[in-house]
Amino acid sequence: MAEPILRRGLLYVLSSPSGAGKSTIARKLLAADDEIGLSVSATTRPQREGEVDGQDYHFVSNARFDELVEQAAFLEWAHVFERRYGTLKSEVRETLDAGRDVLLDIDWQGTQQLKQVDPDIVRVFILPPSMEELERRLRDRGTDSDEVIAGRMQRAADEISHWAEYDYVLINDDADSCAAMAIDILHAERLRRNRRTGLVDFVRGLTG
Amino acid sequence: MAEPILRRGLLYVLSSPSGAGKSTIARKLLAADDEIGLSVSATTRPQREGEVDGQDYHFVSNARFDELVEQAAFLEWAHVFERRYGTLKSEVRETLDAGRDVLLDIDWQGTQQLKQVDPDIVRVFILPPSMEELERRLRDRGTDSDEVIAGRMQRAADEISHWAEYDYVLINDDADSCAAMAIDILHAERLRRNRRTGLVDFVRGLTG
Repeated sequence: MAEPILRRGLLYVLSSPSGAGKSTIARKLLAADDEIGLSVSATTRPQREGEVDGQDYHFVSNARFDELVEQAAFLEWAHVFERRYGTLKSEVRETLDAGRDVLLDIDWQGTQQLKQVDPDIVRVFILPPSMEELERRLRDRGTDSDEVIAGRMQRAADEISHWAEYDYVLINDDADSCAAMAIDILHAERLRRNRRTGLVDFVRGLTG
Repeated sequence: MAEPILRRGLLYVLSSPSGAGKSTIARKLLAADDEIGLSVSATTRPQREGEVDGQDYHFVSNARFDELVEQAAFLEWAHVFERRYGTLKSEVRETLDAGRDVLLDIDWQGTQQLKQVDPDIVRVFILPPSMEELERRLRDRGTDSDEVIAGRMQRAADEISHWAEYDYVLINDDADSCAAMAIDILHAERLRRNRRTGLVDFVRGLTG
């Protein structure tokens, strides 16, 4: 078997309203494929029970977040519910330098910013099968009050209104088949000519 | 399970130098997926033993080909070795109307023409692992003289020189894994937002 063709790392964006199953899809995608790693976002929101700092998020203070913004340390950052979330350049660079793709779990605001920095990102949006199902999933978490749920449903509608800004749109009827589609997209996007930087040398070697 | 989302049929172009294994990949792709059908080209070249008219090609006379050109019956057509090959609009339309994607086995000339008619085509180029392997495959057919082989090798180099005009480039080290990559691409391209025309209604139904 020949050497694998050298390729450029991929920025793979996954967006969806909260409750559409994005975290499950992300987990399945990361488990199914060794060549992609998650970009852990920095956030000013408080750490929840069970969350691990540096794994789920980099939990930082408002002052620290301000500093990072000032240092231009973010690829993108956004306000969500008066909290801030951002993608650290260092986080993404580390993964790309290790020859792996980067999975970014960010919202439409972050995606818009990232698209301006790097037009070559792959943007995937996950829709819930219905708003009833979305609300059921939000309630099943059992962590939020009715008021918070209502706010999340409003925000979900806002997030969904940006579906047409994405390259691919999946409906999460079933987590396994939705994850399989997300993986198909990852594998296909890796095969794009413009990302397979080693092809130039390969073809040169082929035809002299 | 919900209704499948309505989508627009796909034109999937497969090009490669003769001997790179394109026919095998095409056969495997068609066998693995029910929703894609082959566009059978019209040609003025003579029918070979074992070939079936209307299945391998539509074999037509030079005069008939002229007529079809005059009637603007072709989506694209090209000269190859003083023979002509073309894709009939009727052939493609029939498959798309049946709600299926169309696989087109055409060369770089046809691909360029088709891209101008429909910018949304998916272009996949298949490279041989080496020129030695390509020549071996051409000789193994046992049907051609040294002179014809030399001509085909020259034409292969010409065809390969157009590799960078394609969206995806695959190296055919192994037919099964190459076909699997071609199928990944097909499945992913079907999930592109702009091809899933039913999404507009789906999202409208979702958020009212």
